[in-house]
This record gives sequence, structure tokens and C-alpha cells, in this order.
Amino acid sequence: MTLTVAEIASRLGAAYEGDGACAITGVGGLRDARRGDVTFLANPRYASAVGATQASAILVSAAFDRKASVALIRCENPDAAFAQVVQWFAPAPVEWAPGVHPLALVAPDAVLGEGVRVGPFSVVEAGARIGARTAIAAQVYVGAACEIGEDGRIYPQVSLRERVRLGARVIVHNGTVIGSDGFGYTVTAGGARQKIPQLGTVVVGDDVEIGANVTIDRARFGKTIIGNGVKIDNLVQIAHNVVIGDHAVIVAQVGIAGSTMIGGKAVIAGQAGVGGHLVVGEGAIVGGQAAVTKNVPPGQFVSGYPATPHQESMRLHAHIARLPEMRERLAELAERLARLEGKPKAAGPAPAGTEPA
Amino acid sequence: MTLTVAEIASRLGAAYEGDGACAITGVGGLRDARRGDVTFLANPRYASAVGATQASAILVSAAFDRKASVALIRCENPDAAFAQVVQWFAPAPVEWAPGVHPLALVAPDAVLGEGVRVGPFSVVEAGARIGARTAIAAQVYVGAACEIGEDGRIYPQVSLRERVRLGARVIVHNGTVIGSDGFGYTVTAGGARQKIPQLGTVVVGDDVEIGANVTIDRARFGKTIIGNGVKIDNLVQIAHNVVIGDHAVIVAQVGIAGSTMIGGKAVIAGQAGVGGHLVVGEGAIVGGQAAVTKNVPPGQFVSGYPATPHQESMRLHAHIARLPEMRERLAELAERLARLEGKPKAAGPAPAGTEPA
Amino acid sequence: MTLTVAEIASRLGAAYEGDGACAITGVGGLRDARRGDVTFLANPRYASAVGATQASAILVSAAFDRKASVALIRCENPDAAFAQVVQWFAPAPVEWAPGVHPLALVAPDAVLGEGVRVGPFSVVEAGARIGARTAIAAQVYVGAACEIGEDGRIYPQVSLRERVRLGARVIVHNGTVIGSDGFGYTVTAGGARQKIPQLGTVVVGDDVEIGANVTIDRARFGKTIIGNGVKIDNLVQIAHNVVIGDHAVIVAQVGIAGSTMIGGKAVIAGQAGVGGHLVVGEGAIVGGQAAVTKNVPPGQFVSGYPATPHQESMRLHAHIARLPEMRERLAELAERLARLEGKPKAAGPAPAGTEPA
Repeated sequence: MTLTVAEIASRLGAAYEGDGACAITGVGGLRDARRGDVTFLANPRYASAVGATQASAILVSAAFDRKASVALIRCENPDAAFAQVVQWFAPAPVEWAPGVHPLALVAPDAVLGEGVRVGPFSVVEAGARIGARTAIAAQVYVGAACEIGEDGRIYPQVSLRERVRLGARVIVHNGTVIGSDGFGYTVTAGGARQKIPQLGTVVVGDDVEIGANVTIDRARFGKTIIGNGVKIDNLVQIAHNVVIGDHAVIVAQVGIAGSTMIGGKAVIAGQAGVGGHLVVGEGAIVGGQAAVTKNVPPGQFVSGYPATPHQESMRLHAHIARLPEMRERLAELAERLARLEGKPKAAGPAPAGTEPA
Repeated sequence: MTLTVAEIASRLGAAYEGDGACAITGVGGLRDARRGDVTFLANPRYASAVGATQASAILVSAAFDRKASVALIRCENPDAAFAQVVQWFAPAPVEWAPGVHPLALVAPDAVLGEGVRVGPFSVVEAGARIGARTAIAAQVYVGAACEIGEDGRIYPQVSLRERVRLGARVIVHNGTVIGSDGFGYTVTAGGARQKIPQLGTVVVGDDVEIGANVTIDRARFGKTIIGNGVKIDNLVQIAHNVVIGDHAVIVAQVGIAGSTMIGGKAVIAGQAGVGGHLVVGEGAIVGGQAAVTKNVPPGQFVSGYPATPHQESMRLHAHIARLPEMRERLAELAERLARLEGKPKAAGPAPAGTEPA
Repeated sequence: MTLTVAEIASRLGAAYEGDGACAITGVGGLRDARRGDVTFLANPRYASAVGATQASAILVSAAFDRKASVALIRCENPDAAFAQVVQWFAPAPVEWAPGVHPLALVAPDAVLGEGVRVGPFSVVEAGARIGARTAIAAQVYVGAACEIGEDGRIYPQVSLRERVRLGARVIVHNGTVIGSDGFGYTVTAGGARQKIPQLGTVVVGDDVEIGANVTIDRARFGKTIIGNGVKIDNLVQIAHNVVIGDHAVIVAQVGIAGSTMIGGKAVIAGQAGVGGHLVVGEGAIVGGQAAVTKNVPPGQFVSGYPATPHQESMRLHAHIARLPEMRERLAELAERLARLEGKPKAAGPAPAGTEPA
């Protein structure tokens, strides 16, 4: 795809400055764009990078007032405009042709909707049902009696254990495991662990996206539940019997222990851990690397180890940073106090080195 | 499966209150049970949830004294009783029929015990030996000269690199990698890293269960060792040359660095990290997200960053929480001290605002 | 392979003490070596373990002055010498014969260099190019239009999404996913998330090694970049648009958020997290479990939560450890101050228990 600067501006309904005939053949970030690319400046914080960019044109806001040696396209919202431009130059998406690949293994009693695709070396076990137009990539495992809704997209090397249910329009990225056994044991008298059967399953709502190499355990009994619209990043661990409310966001490497409930629209930031049998309220925010050890009220932002309300946590960190100063202050007071205590004995303050310890 | 309340009580040798003829068709937790399910109340903490449950019957202890609108079955230990009931209603487990699937690829010199199953698209490389009745699911990779004991269960998409050994009755969940190269390099003069060959292997004992998407690296030389009865949760990282003692428990997302020894029956809680070349003693407990930077004596419970004995760590956190108060106290003392120091000059205490800084 | 102690010493150009005719058949660490093995002592810290080793010979330095009941081989650098010895006794590496396995599925227009190997149940999609002598193991997924350089080694169950590029001599361990969608959404008025298309790709340099079950997301547009010589350990998460400089080292379970740049030769230790849109300078070191929330200057060593210069962080931790003492000191000062304040009213110091609160 090649478009001139003038053509891009015209498609965006925007004005431009500089060489309108300049040919644009791709897109890139300010830092990684090359000659022939168009880039954008959304955050004024990065304005200084404009001088160094290799791009041939930049989408900027009306407020941008630096000189630039390349073409400028003035947009109300450079970020949103760039999102449009990116799509014009995007490589054609990979097409997954419908149909069962001859090297896929689909059980005779599995029910596939219209337009379903099953890729090579994938297995669909007995009793599974796959909704219309859902694409199962190569090397996927769909366990017995699984149900997958319509218009889903299951990337290579995903594993769904038996009886797992996914809603409509669910995306699951490569290497993710849904429905593995929960981690539950009883301790015998001798200290060995005996496995507690994990007889439940996992139910995932509609419009959910799950990242790569995630693990979601099946319930001990009943269901581990991922609500509608939930977005889960890579390498997240969700233990048995967890319930995640609609539209919650779980960022990479988070771990959520057994039977915990995450409220709708809550956001759990990267590498945070949430203990077992807790409730994180609707719309709550858990900061990165936080360790949640008790319930979090709806709407509250918590952070730190153990997690406390973020402002309190920040205040404590500020206090910690001033500990050396506090310690000096304490020593100084002790010295002055000793001097005062010594007064009855001496006319003036005691000379340094002679105060009582 | 359908059982009446009276039939369930009779099988448990328990008394019941309410409608004994009520038909029960499933099980569920207090919160997710539906009409027709039986549930249980083990922890009095959740007694208030009894009123809201949709279940048709509840296993409760003798001490439970609330009114309930549904049938109650009185058990000495509702948790244990429920574990039994759950099995009566459990869906039939997935059967893995013995035999090598025609779409599996098994090396001619691999040795398979009686009743072994190898699923479709799995690979068993040259010289591998698999014990009697062990089930290798679909899409599994068993490297050259691996040895797997009897009665094991290897779920889809597990990878065992060459020469890895698993004991008897080992369960490995989907996506787990055992025997990948340890992370070892020498630094050249120019700052580049040169790979140190990782020539050892991994040996896993009997009765071990390993979760999903776990990584266990092979030793630089010799063996990374996972003892008998060890239980490892999802997304755990175990580096080269680690030794884990019998019956230790490693919770999700823990990382254990190279050459560290974890004592028997030790418990490492979720997201904790243990540094390299350390010893965590037998029966020690490492708290969630703890950072272990030195040896932990047998039986000790450590937590925090860096990990210290848990009680000490709790005490320090309490002190930190009171830092604002301490700071105020310090300011108050300074004011009083200044007032005292000013005394010789004034008859009474200096008025506020006139103390020396 | 069997060598005598004298033969090993001779090959190393080293002197030995003890039974030169003793037959050595393997290698092992001090703690796990068995009769017939040779081991080594590099770190004097472990000298006390020499007495307990089961090994039949030990490589030691000239400075080692303990008595030993087994043969000693004196080396300038026992660690380096042992690395040589290990290779003599190493099992023959697994050979991956060149050629496309009849059970692999390679698109007709894929371009394979000379000596390429593609294992069983692997998929190489349309337009992919694989460099000479690169080995693709079993059950690997190589997406459309991927490019892999020469002499690479891609272990079983790795997934490369479309258009990902790997340089020469790249090693990718089992279960790793490269090119999964970045985690990007816009929030609608109702609080739901709408997926932002992730149209970019991932470019990996030469001589890179990537561990097991790692996830590296493709850029929103443009490229997520892994520089030359970078080494990445297991279970690491690298988000969209991250740039990692040449020869950086990323240890297990680290997470790097979107658009962050890691400088060349930087080292990010295990379980650390680096926030989004940050710059970690060249040669910087980030400690284990650290939480990087702002830019790190080149060469700086940071640690802690939030990450601060390591020495400062250590100093603050020392202060925290002394908080109980500080609190006692404060109470003592308060008591002495109260006594002083009481003086005008009493001839001597107030008796304990009568001071003002």
C-alpha cells in the first residue's frame, strides 16, 4: 500500500504542512519508524523525539508548535487518527479457511457449527460442541464435552480440558491451559499429601480474551467462572473456584488464589497476588506486585505488601524514605536533652564528647 | 444421578431435617449451587451465606443453629462428608483407552509397559521407557531415553526433554516443560554471553504432581531432583540443579534459583522467590511473595522482602504502619525540648510560634 | 566413557595426588556425585562438603589444603577445568537428522534452507523462510511469513505467530510463544473493553536464547525488538513494543510492560517487574523482585519496591530493621524529657510511674 501525505490527510479530513506528494508506505512509532513511514505524536512528553524520528510524516495535534523537517498532518486526536492509518497499511490478516483439516482428529460425535475451522494436528474429543464460525488453529486440544461459542478464535497449542465452556467471541492465545486440576490436597498423618479430586469445571463468558501461557484451574466442584468481557494478559494464574466479574482486567503474571471473587470492572495490575477466599470489590484497582491479604472494598485502589489503600501506602513509603533523617533528628534531640539534663551540673552546655550516653 | 435428601443422609449415616423426599441432582458451593444441588457449610464464617444459597439441601455440623428454608443434613465433618457426596454426583471421569493411537509416533525401540496409552500426535523418541498403565495424552513430547514409571498420567502438550526420569504415579498437567536447558552463561571480555552446556537431567520421584505450564530445567551436570510426594502448582520455575525434598509443596508462580535445596515437607507459598545456592530447611514455610536471600532453618516460617522470620516481619510492618504517629511524636518532643531550652530566658513556656527551630 | 584419574590430570595438564589408576566413569556436583564420579571445588565456601562427597576424585585449586581420602587433581581454575571434563563424559547429544518428517506439514511455498529439519506434527505456514541447518523440533508452529535465520534450534511446542523474525543461531525452548497479540484495549463508555488490533510483529536478533514457556507479544504496530545476544530465562513476559538492547539478560519470571526499553547488557533479575514506557539504561542491574516505576540511569543497580538505588534500598532496610529500637529510644527520650519538665515542681527526678503522660 502506498499513499501520499496529501491522500492520508484527505482521508482523515485533516490539514497538512510540508510535501503533500511524499509517498508513505508504512507506519511506525516515533522511535522505530523509518524513511517512508508515517508516525504520530499523541503525548507532548515525547515532543523532543520528533527531531530524531526517521519517519517521513507525523500526525500531530493542533497544539504542536515545534519546527519539523518532515510533513505534519494536523489531527484533533493523533492517537485515534493513527489507529485508522495503521489499519490502511496493515498486512492482510491471516485467513483461517473454514473446514476440518484432513490432519485434524475430530470425534465422530463432536458437533461443529457452520463455518467452523479445525487446524492440522488438533484434537476435538467426544461430545465437544463448537459454535458457528469459530476457528480452532493447529495443534489445539479440545477435551471431551467442551463447549465453545460462536465466532471464537483459539490459537495454536491451547489446551481445554474436559467439559470446559467458552462463550461467544472468545479469543484464547497460544499455549494457554483451561481446566487443569485445582491444587488441593489433604495432609495425611505422616505429612504426605493426598489429592482431592477436582470434579468441577471452568466457565468462560462472552467476549473474553485470554493471553498466552495462562493457566485457569477447574473448580474442586462447581465452576471456576470468568465473566463476560474479562481480559486476561499472559502468564496469569487463576486457581480453582475463583470467580471473576464482568469486564475485569487481569494484567500479566498476576496470581489469584482459590475461591477468591474479583468484582466486575476491577483491574489487577501486573505481578500482583490475591490471596484465597477473598473478595476484591467491583471497580477496585490492585497495584502492580501488590499482595492482597484481605478484602478490598469496591472502587478502592490498593497497593504494596501487604496491600493497603494506595495513598496510605504512598504515605508510608515517603515516611520510610525519610527514616535516615528521622534517625538523625532523634540523635540530635538526645544530644540536646543530655545537654539540658547536664545543666544543673555545668554553667554552659556540655562540650561534645562528654554527654551521657 | 438422582438421590433424595433421605438417601444421601442414609448413605452418610447422618440425620436430616426438612423434606427427605427432595430430589438432589448435583453439588455446588454455597454461592454457586443451584436448585436441586446439595451444598455444605464447613466454616462458620460463611454461615450468613446460608440464607442466600440456591441449593436444595445443606450439609451442616451439629453446632449449626440458624433457621434454613431448605433441608439440612447433620454431619460430624461436613467438609469430609461433602467430599464423599461430590464423588457420587461426579461426571464419569474421562477414560483414556490403552493402546498406541494410530496417529501417535513411537520410536521402534521405545519400551512400553502393559496397558500404556499414547494419544494422537504424541511423539515418543528412541530409547524411551514407559511403565505399565501410564497414560500419555495427545500432543505430548517424550524425549529420547526418557523413563516414566507406572500408573502415570501425562496431560496434553507436556514436553519432556531427553533423559528425564519420572517415578511411579506421577501426574503432569498440560503445557509443562521438564528438562529444558538451565540458564547458564559465561561472560566474554566484550560483555557477550557464551552458553554453558547443560548436560545433566531431571529426576522426579514417585507420587509427584506437577501443575500446568511449569518449567523445570535440567542440571548443568548431574541432576535437578524433585523428591517423592512433592506437589507443584501452575507456572512454577525450578532452575538447574535445584533439589526439592520429599513431600514439599510449591505453590503457583514460585521461582527457585539454581542449586538451591528445599527441605522435605517445606511449603513455599505463591509468587515467592528463593535465591540461588541456598538451603530452605525441612518443614520450613516461606510466605507468599517472600524473597528468600539466605538460608532458612528447618521449621522456620519466613516472609517479606527480604524474607525474615514471620513474626519479626509482622512486627516490622506494624512499626512501619505507625511511622506517621512516630514522626508526630518526634515533632512534639522537639517542641517540648525547645520550650525547655528556652526556659532560662523566659519565666514560663515560650508561646507557640516563638520556639527556636 | 572411562578415564583414569591420571588420564584426566594429563588431559588437563594438571598434577594429581592419590590413586592415579582410579577409574572415573562420570561427573557430579560435590553433593550428588557418586562413587566413580569426578567432582570439583570452585568456591572455598563449600570446602567443608569435601569430606562428605561420594566422588572418587576432586578438581581443586592449588590453595586447597584440606586432607582428602580421594584423589585430588590440582587445577588453576577448577570451575573451567570441570567444564572441560564434563564434556568428555557427556551423553551424546540428541541428533536431529535433517529433512522434513513425513508427518510434518510444510506449506508448498515455504522456503527451507539446506539441511533444515522439521519434526513430526510441526506446521510451517505459507511464506515462511527457514535458514540453513536450522532444526525445527516436533509439534512446533511456525506462522505465515515467519523468517528464521541459520543454525537455529526451535524446541518442541514452540509457537511463532505470523511474520515473526528470528536471527541466526537463535535457540527457543519448549512451550514459548512469540508474537501473541499485545494487551491493548480502549474503554467504552459502559466500561467494557474494545480490542485494539495488534498489527506489528516481533524481531529477534542473532545469538539469542529464549527459555521455556516465555511469552513475547507482537507490537501494536511496528516491532517488539529483542537485540543480538540477549538471553531470556523461563516464564518471562515481554509486552508489546518493548525493545531489549544487545546482550541484555532477563532472568526467570520477569515481566516487562509495554513500550519499555531495556539497555544493552542490562541484567533484570528474577521476578522483577518493569513498568511501561520506561527506559532502563545500558548496563543497569535490576534486583530480584524489584518493581521499577521510573527510568533507571545507565549502569545503576536498583532494587526494592519501588526500586531505588540498591545501596539506598539496603540502607532503608537497615533502618526499618532498627525501627523497634528507634521506638524504644523515642519512649526513653520522652520519659527523660517529662522528668526534666517536671523538675521545677520537684527537687529530684520524678519517681517512675508519676511522670506526665
